[in-house]
Amino acid sequence: MGARVAVFGATGAVGMEMLKILEERNFPIAELRLLASRGGRSAVWRGEELPIIPVGPDSFKDIDIALFSVEGDVSRVWAPQAVESGAVVIDNSSAFRMDDSVPLVIPEVNPEDIARHKGIIANPNCSTIIALVALWPLHKKARIRRLVASTYQAVSGAGKAGLDELIDQTRAWAQDSSLRIETFQHQIAFNLIPHIDAFSEDGYTKEELKLRNESRKIMHEPDLMVSCTCVRVPVLRSHSESLNIELEHPLSPEEARELLRAAPGVKVVDDPAHNVYPMPLDTSGQDLIWVGRIRRDASTKNALALWVCGDQIRKGAATNAVQIASALWERKN
Amino acid sequence: MGARVAVFGATGAVGMEMLKILEERNFPIAELRLLASRGGRSAVWRGEELPIIPVGPDSFKDIDIALFSVEGDVSRVWAPQAVESGAVVIDNSSAFRMDDSVPLVIPEVNPEDIARHKGIIANPNCSTIIALVALWPLHKKARIRRLVASTYQAVSGAGKAGLDELIDQTRAWAQDSSLRIETFQHQIAFNLIPHIDAFSEDGYTKEELKLRNESRKIMHEPDLMVSCTCVRVPVLRSHSESLNIELEHPLSPEEARELLRAAPGVKVVDDPAHNVYPMPLDTSGQDLIWVGRIRRDASTKNALALWVCGDQIRKGAATNAVQIASALWERKN
Repeated sequence: MGARVAVFGATGAVGMEMLKILEERNFPIAELRLLASRGGRSAVWRGEELPIIPVGPDSFKDIDIALFSVEGDVSRVWAPQAVESGAVVIDNSSAFRMDDSVPLVIPEVNPEDIARHKGIIANPNCSTIIALVALWPLHKKARIRRLVASTYQAVSGAGKAGLDELIDQTRAWAQDSSLRIETFQHQIAFNLIPHIDAFSEDGYTKEELKLRNESRKIMHEPDLMVSCTCVRVPVLRSHSESLNIELEHPLSPEEARELLRAAPGVKVVDDPAHNVYPMPLDTSGQDLIWVGRIRRDASTKNALALWVCGDQIRKGAATNAVQIASALWERKN
Repeated sequence: MGARVAVFGATGAVGMEMLKILEERNFPIAELRLLASRGGRSAVWRGEELPIIPVGPDSFKDIDIALFSVEGDVSRVWAPQAVESGAVVIDNSSAFRMDDSVPLVIPEVNPEDIARHKGIIANPNCSTIIALVALWPLHKKARIRRLVASTYQAVSGAGKAGLDELIDQTRAWAQDSSLRIETFQHQIAFNLIPHIDAFSEDGYTKEELKLRNESRKIMHEPDLMVSCTCVRVPVLRSHSESLNIELEHPLSPEEARELLRAAPGVKVVDDPAHNVYPMPLDTSGQDLIWVGRIRRDASTKNALALWVCGDQIRKGAATNAVQIASALWERKN
């Protein structure tokens, strides 16, 4: 007996990736229902053409697990209805992430929180997932007190429109044509934009605050100190992050590498003498978080510097949601 | 009466920019001699076509100031000879930067060190100049104890070959052709390479250590703590840096903005509510270091986060050298 699964937002970049991952992982599915706010074309899944249905009052009837990858406002409307229909919602938006009654889960970090759900489980922000898969094994051993992060985020973090904008601007540049700016605030081809999501009053963007607030909740460390600068870079796919951590206990780079080699979801890629380190071009299209450039940060006590890359559409979004769905289904059966 | 000036490395990206800046700033020149390791084509300066002469034993005879922009090994050979000929050398390579007898100067930070020279004055690394022009006014007021920096460095930091490689790879991509990798270790188009200059034993690259070592020398702060991660990004020109500083004394973001507004060489570009912040596309081709995203870093005591961009060929190299030459010449006359 398989699960009856709905994917809401099946026309988006993350939704389409969810379908792919459900197929790749051979998720036990009895019924797959594809939904979108305004409907859409069909999608092929396991060789079968499935319609993409406009969401409606009966959309979540007889559904066990609903994977949501829609805007927060849309999640806020439809997630409670899906729960009322009897589905468990795994929501990729920021709508419920900081809600005390909603677990926020990275299966490699806090799988036990899944059991606390009351119908909705939130999927963390992509940058949070990529950082914490790498940092959690170090935290468990030596306790992170402060994290300073600078991100290098791919355009597809803004969905298909972001991806298309960099491709279109680059093509226009190669043809000496004028560049159109629609999705991002400024030209992104050959540029950097230190602005992702809206600014809050303290000068940080919401994207930057997500790393702090979500990390505290996922790690159950309400006092974890985090400062983050989020920057959009002209990379198609995979986010990268430069991380400096200050630990309570000493931890050598070699110990860190050993811990990470044994940790789930992580690949240690750290052989600088042979020009080997994580790069976004190499981490795209796969599920592991690559960690490298691990070194002692001698500028303060018990500190390490590291560099991580991960596919933000897969592990940063779709894969993480499907992993939660798997854990849910295993618990139920 | 003007100065007799030689530009050694006149065929390179920085050398060519030096010529432009000498002209723009109306530097008082009696004679301009253009030199290159293997000679080169001519260059036009103030409407006049000047030959580019292969460097030789008589190259620095009757020269007052020699601007060097060549590889460190070449500087090591020719700078002592130029000094012996009576010239003062302003050297852009890393050959003499950490030599105790050689001042390392950013005119906005330590102009007084120029007077200590014994024939050679070193021009700091581009990332150091860009960071310190922005940080020095804050340091003078509140004393920086620790700096955590992540850089986003343009391909032209690797000279014309680096610039050409990103342009060629991008054009090839747009034509669905295969990409050639020659200058950088890996593909740079749509990618990030966390590797600039050689790796040292502690896991940091020399480029990363330069920021620490050069900052200590320029600021006369031997105990300044610095950790840096240097990353090559697919941007044509202008380096960007995400900086977190920990200060001895409290300093509010508004005080920092006021100090920076009054400081030489800096432009405060910090109005996020209107999508205004420094971006490399905007800082290219000019001399100011743009500073924005200034905010309190609440993750530790007395800390600030900021984002700076600057043209690494101009203020990060050529302009800084010409400024030193101007100060030298003014002192002499």
